[in-house]
Amino acid sequence: MRTVAVDAMGGDGAPGPEVQGALEAVRQRLARVVLVGDEARVRRALGASADVEGLRVVHASEVITMTDHPGQAARGKRDSSMRVAFELARRGEADAVVSAGNSGAFLASGLFVMKRVAGVDRPGVATSLPTEKEPCALLDMGANVDCRPRHLAQFAVLGAAYARLRHGRIRPRVGVLSNGEESVKGTELTRATHALLAEARSDDFTYLGYVEGKDVFTGMCDVVVTDGFTGNVLLKTAEGVGRFVLQLVKREVQRGTWSRLGALLLRGAFRRLRRTVDYDEHGGAPLLGLDGVAVLCHGRSSPKAIKNGIGVAASLAGAGLPQAMREAILRHSNLWAGEAVQAQGG
Amino acid sequence: MRTVAVDAMGGDGAPGPEVQGALEAVRQRLARVVLVGDEARVRRALGASADVEGLRVVHASEVITMTDHPGQAARGKRDSSMRVAFELARRGEADAVVSAGNSGAFLASGLFVMKRVAGVDRPGVATSLPTEKEPCALLDMGANVDCRPRHLAQFAVLGAAYARLRHGRIRPRVGVLSNGEESVKGTELTRATHALLAEARSDDFTYLGYVEGKDVFTGMCDVVVTDGFTGNVLLKTAEGVGRFVLQLVKREVQRGTWSRLGALLLRGAFRRLRRTVDYDEHGGAPLLGLDGVAVLCHGRSSPKAIKNGIGVAASLAGAGLPQAMREAILRHSNLWAGEAVQAQGG
Repeated sequence: MRTVAVDAMGGDGAPGPEVQGALEAVRQRLARVVLVGDEARVRRALGASADVEGLRVVHASEVITMTDHPGQAARGKRDSSMRVAFELARRGEADAVVSAGNSGAFLASGLFVMKRVAGVDRPGVATSLPTEKEPCALLDMGANVDCRPRHLAQFAVLGAAYARLRHGRIRPRVGVLSNGEESVKGTELTRATHALLAEARSDDFTYLGYVEGKDVFTGMCDVVVTDGFTGNVLLKTAEGVGRFVLQLVKREVQRGTWSRLGALLLRGAFRRLRRTVDYDEHGGAPLLGLDGVAVLCHGRSSPKAIKNGIGVAASLAGAGLPQAMREAILRHSNLWAGEAVQAQGG
Repeated sequence: MRTVAVDAMGGDGAPGPEVQGALEAVRQRLARVVLVGDEARVRRALGASADVEGLRVVHASEVITMTDHPGQAARGKRDSSMRVAFELARRGEADAVVSAGNSGAFLASGLFVMKRVAGVDRPGVATSLPTEKEPCALLDMGANVDCRPRHLAQFAVLGAAYARLRHGRIRPRVGVLSNGEESVKGTELTRATHALLAEARSDDFTYLGYVEGKDVFTGMCDVVVTDGFTGNVLLKTAEGVGRFVLQLVKREVQRGTWSRLGALLLRGAFRRLRRTVDYDEHGGAPLLGLDGVAVLCHGRSSPKAIKNGIGVAASLAGAGLPQAMREAILRHSNLWAGEAVQAQGG
């Protein structure tokens, strides 16, 4: 069983959800867990469960808050729960790191302690979107607002490795998010990325070309790459529309007796529906391109979301994600080599 | 009653939907309509309804196709149905133009024939999104992929004028789409736009700062401005997620007898729901910043979508949209004056 270091002080309600999620993960034998944080507070949250097998607590005296400057906090707060969690992974005392804390600081701490896979310029944050068929990995979902084509090409390679290990795709289908399918569409960034990937002829993935926001949810591709600004807009829009449509359904069914009876009969269906679109079920967002396994959970994570994040982190570590990323980047480094030279020359 | 010139040859199924939509608009006394296109084909589609009062046909010998190069087609095809429709508006024989054709060519033809409102750099395409409360105008939704801050500031002013006339907002709330609410988030473009609009102190609108993709659908703002690439991603994602969630509901309710009975009782609710998210109900997308009224409909528009497009075009013309845009741009031109100087100096 793998060991996951959990930043117990990261989320908005910390350490409650982190501790409860960790306990549940241990009970379900998803992983061994090291809870990192203020020992007194963590032990208080653990209560009578402090001696559960497979769980231990490591003290860290500092906490990175949501308003801390990412880079400064990552370097300056040397004994933060986030940083100590990464140190455990670096020393081999944990196979993966999970946090619901400051996302920028999580990335900065990862870069500082865990380092990047050789050849990766910037790690990307991936998320699994539900679709009509199988889940689709979207990256970057927010870390890298200004990207260059080589970054997106690396996201494609990293995303394909992730889709293979996480979602079992043998040869993932990869698309570049754009505002139309024709290759004349898009921005300078998407067109240059398209030019790189169209030349790829990779055995690791099938490149589909441009895909649109609506295609993502039909399940026609396994990986969608974009810059962090656009990825964030897509993700938040999907959240917003999902909530909006469920609201509308709710409002409509409360309009009359027959409708209410209908809604009663559909209770099970609605429950399954909510589970499909429920963020908590999807187990956090891995930072692809770090030389290890690091999974970011939402700041408002419930215990269930933390538990699922731990489960995903353990299974990615067990499947050998870091090794798979290293090999994939090596195999494809010629893809963006030309782009770098061009950029330096131009 | 206003007169609307309809490009009868634009849409994927032209001239059928255009002709049927025009007939319905005339019957409902939404507007007088001039159908512009191949006279023989249009008259065949009209059949026995050729002599309906309030409807006339103007011949145009050429058609701009979806694959034509926008600029070349707009200038080169001098007798295209799209161009002739704009010429009618220019000569005062029509108060507005509607087309379901090539969107780039529609914009190029509008720029060429109808011209811009003085002081506007680039027209933006606006769309009305349904929300939990009142509709929200999003622009640009695809015409301008690469934007400068002054373009987005102009979209804010034009969008506010539109929201006032179309959705009855006295003092519309305007947001800039970003990847987080804090003003340190965003791209260079959104930060510079934010700086311009934060200084606005306009009586025409209330500036809310950054809004996220999820905020759009709660109804917290009346106008959201963004570049055409991001706007298109938002719009297509919303379409995709809306369809996806309704698919899920459908699949879930077919899983058992009780569910199916429930679905039967909810039929009316689902019908109203589909109407809320149905593109056809929303009457097309006006090109704000042209010195006139031009409404773009989807290439796959149904007769109902065309009819609604004609209705929106007539009501915007009746409400004096061009005059309102001219005045609003005059009142706010100091907003982006500084940005232009900065750009020339830097």
